[in-house]
Amino acid sequence: MALIVMKFGGTSVADIEKIENAADKVVKEVERGNKVTVVVSAMSGVTNQLVEYCSEISSLYDVREYDTVVASGEQVTAGLMAIALQKRGVTARSWLGWQIPIKTNTIHGKARIEEIETKELHKRLDAGEVVVVPGFQGVTKNKRITTLGRGGSDTSAVAMAAALKADRCDIYTDVKGVYTADPRIVPKARMIPKISYEEMLELASLGSKVLQTRSVEMGAKSGVPIQVLSTFEPYLGSDLKGTLVTKEENIVEQEIVSGIAHNKDEAKVTVVGVEDKPGIAASLFEPLAKAAINVDMIVQNISSRDGKTDMTFTVPRTDLERALKTLENLKTLKYEKLIVDPKVAKVSVVGIGMRSHAGVANKMFRTLADKGINIQVISTSEIKISVLIQEDYTELAVRSLHSAYGLEENKKIA
Amino acid sequence: MALIVMKFGGTSVADIEKIENAADKVVKEVERGNKVTVVVSAMSGVTNQLVEYCSEISSLYDVREYDTVVASGEQVTAGLMAIALQKRGVTARSWLGWQIPIKTNTIHGKARIEEIETKELHKRLDAGEVVVVPGFQGVTKNKRITTLGRGGSDTSAVAMAAALKADRCDIYTDVKGVYTADPRIVPKARMIPKISYEEMLELASLGSKVLQTRSVEMGAKSGVPIQVLSTFEPYLGSDLKGTLVTKEENIVEQEIVSGIAHNKDEAKVTVVGVEDKPGIAASLFEPLAKAAINVDMIVQNISSRDGKTDMTFTVPRTDLERALKTLENLKTLKYEKLIVDPKVAKVSVVGIGMRSHAGVANKMFRTLADKGINIQVISTSEIKISVLIQEDYTELAVRSLHSAYGLEENKKIA
Repeated sequence: MALIVMKFGGTSVADIEKIENAADKVVKEVERGNKVTVVVSAMSGVTNQLVEYCSEISSLYDVREYDTVVASGEQVTAGLMAIALQKRGVTARSWLGWQIPIKTNTIHGKARIEEIETKELHKRLDAGEVVVVPGFQGVTKNKRITTLGRGGSDTSAVAMAAALKADRCDIYTDVKGVYTADPRIVPKARMIPKISYEEMLELASLGSKVLQTRSVEMGAKSGVPIQVLSTFEPYLGSDLKGTLVTKEENIVEQEIVSGIAHNKDEAKVTVVGVEDKPGIAASLFEPLAKAAINVDMIVQNISSRDGKTDMTFTVPRTDLERALKTLENLKTLKYEKLIVDPKVAKVSVVGIGMRSHAGVANKMFRTLADKGINIQVISTSEIKISVLIQEDYTELAVRSLHSAYGLEENKKIA
Repeated sequence: MALIVMKFGGTSVADIEKIENAADKVVKEVERGNKVTVVVSAMSGVTNQLVEYCSEISSLYDVREYDTVVASGEQVTAGLMAIALQKRGVTARSWLGWQIPIKTNTIHGKARIEEIETKELHKRLDAGEVVVVPGFQGVTKNKRITTLGRGGSDTSAVAMAAALKADRCDIYTDVKGVYTADPRIVPKARMIPKISYEEMLELASLGSKVLQTRSVEMGAKSGVPIQVLSTFEPYLGSDLKGTLVTKEENIVEQEIVSGIAHNKDEAKVTVVGVEDKPGIAASLFEPLAKAAINVDMIVQNISSRDGKTDMTFTVPRTDLERALKTLENLKTLKYEKLIVDPKVAKVSVVGIGMRSHAGVANKMFRTLADKGINIQVISTSEIKISVLIQEDYTELAVRSLHSAYGLEENKKIA
């Protein structure tokens, strides 16, 4: 008998028929003798609609009220899921974030879970009851509703699994698992049966939208195995298909390169003609950090002319306008002008085997050069190499790299 | 400086534009120096959609989960209203039922408010903050969300006004006030500027859908003046148009007949051939009461044949199926058959002056007889006479009675 958290994303609970289908999957796990906690997203489209309502009234909405508004989507699905389970003869009830409670900090709109009270839930699970939890939401100590940021239901699921010490966290989604590249771009992309938290983290943060980054971080920290699988495949019992995200040591056959990720959600900003002196980076990026804008890739020109240099960095496109406003209002920093290019894409090669293999980066640069693709910015970590290129070349770059690293066949090639 | 509760119904907050319009009205009251609590319904159509979701999964849904689902509609509007007020420079925040808390009993789906904690709210109101409350919802002592039954936001508003000892409870709606009859049926219907709680109670429970019955009961109990007025009329300051529901003694010029109400929401059930002996009514209506079905008009045939008699009564059409199932499962009561007629309408003449004037009932029966309308059941109270007729004759009956009592002119005629 295992304790399982099953998470259903927006497309898996898009309408009543799909909620019933998801409930069938839960019942199967209950029938196998497992204790089950279900985490649900909002019905697909609902969150976007609610966000739009807020923005329509004011672009500068109070994030506490935004949270109150958008958290309602998951509340609805949780209640409906409980009803669907009860209809199937399974005892179930919904537990909202404030009822459990799922305690978070007070950073509304992007809150972090601090503690989950599990005593009562364990009692219910032990009694054979299914616990249904709306994803994406929590509550502050001042009893205000918070949300965890877009895709936050994955984080809710893994956090519930960690807090309950679950044996597995199953993420049901509309794809079959994690692929070596986006199958819409690379038809020959292969599903990855097992991947390490570290690689998944890079893939997740680099734009492979299967799992929210923070959920993978939490999985790595707690060691909960995360199983990504399709809601729309028939139930296979213990023989779960999909991708298992687990500890590195559990993966016997390690690939050098696991996958090619891409991301068109960033924009490039170049600050031209800033003084080339110590502290200039801090005076540029501190205000952005304070405005809660995540700066990703950063390059500073090596040579300076007339004691001046240029700084280039990327920010999420959704934050671009705020980033520019922040920079324009900077009194402490002088610069000549800002050059903005939102038409960029980040393409990345990810693989845990890179640590011990040379030549991975070189193959990447050579492949892109052969296709005439110009690299604007490079950034690397132990297990990934990312480059910024012109957006139009994204598909060509991803396909060429996928082929260059031999990912369509099940071989290890560096 | 007055303390005012302003309630906006579903059509008054139907979309973002209407929410902004409602917010403008709130700001006007704030600018006049008033302390304001706003109670909002769900955006029109939302509650129906949510109820439909529940019913689509199961007609026997868990009402606790239903409450969790449907209460979300008002939660959304409350957050949006707070954002709209803040945009106008007014400090405001949403207070959900469980945050205040609005404590109710545990009769989910039809909960009754037991207590409202007002200390913190008074502090906020005194500081000039606008308190925004989602209508329709409360919370049990077990921390589960409850709802107050359809139209419950009126009750929330009057309950808030009573708890806060407000000077006035303004109910903003899509009609201009309470009329002597439904203006869609009787074009000459007149708006009633002042009406007593007792009369409004009869009109409300008899199908004039401007106010929920329980809100009027609560108004009568607490003495809070309820002002019904249109959201879509320009703001008139202290010169509020619409209908004031108040204590009888505040109404100087009392009408004998205040209005003609009608209601097509009931169905007639006849239990044929029950034993004519003491206790038979109890054994019939007790099980219905236990199933939370409100039985309205009741008639027992006077003469019995072979020691048997027939019982006729009406129930809400929405409860008809459950009522029939309850009766069919009755082991303790023997009867020959059930005859059901959902095609009935209740038409009522209401007026506080009836207490001291004879001939009101007679005029009603005469008027209907002249039009060839058959009366199936009669029921009376001190201030109303109701008759059950065939549904097709509803409009004819209402129009004839409206004219017979001279309601289109501002005269007193019995």
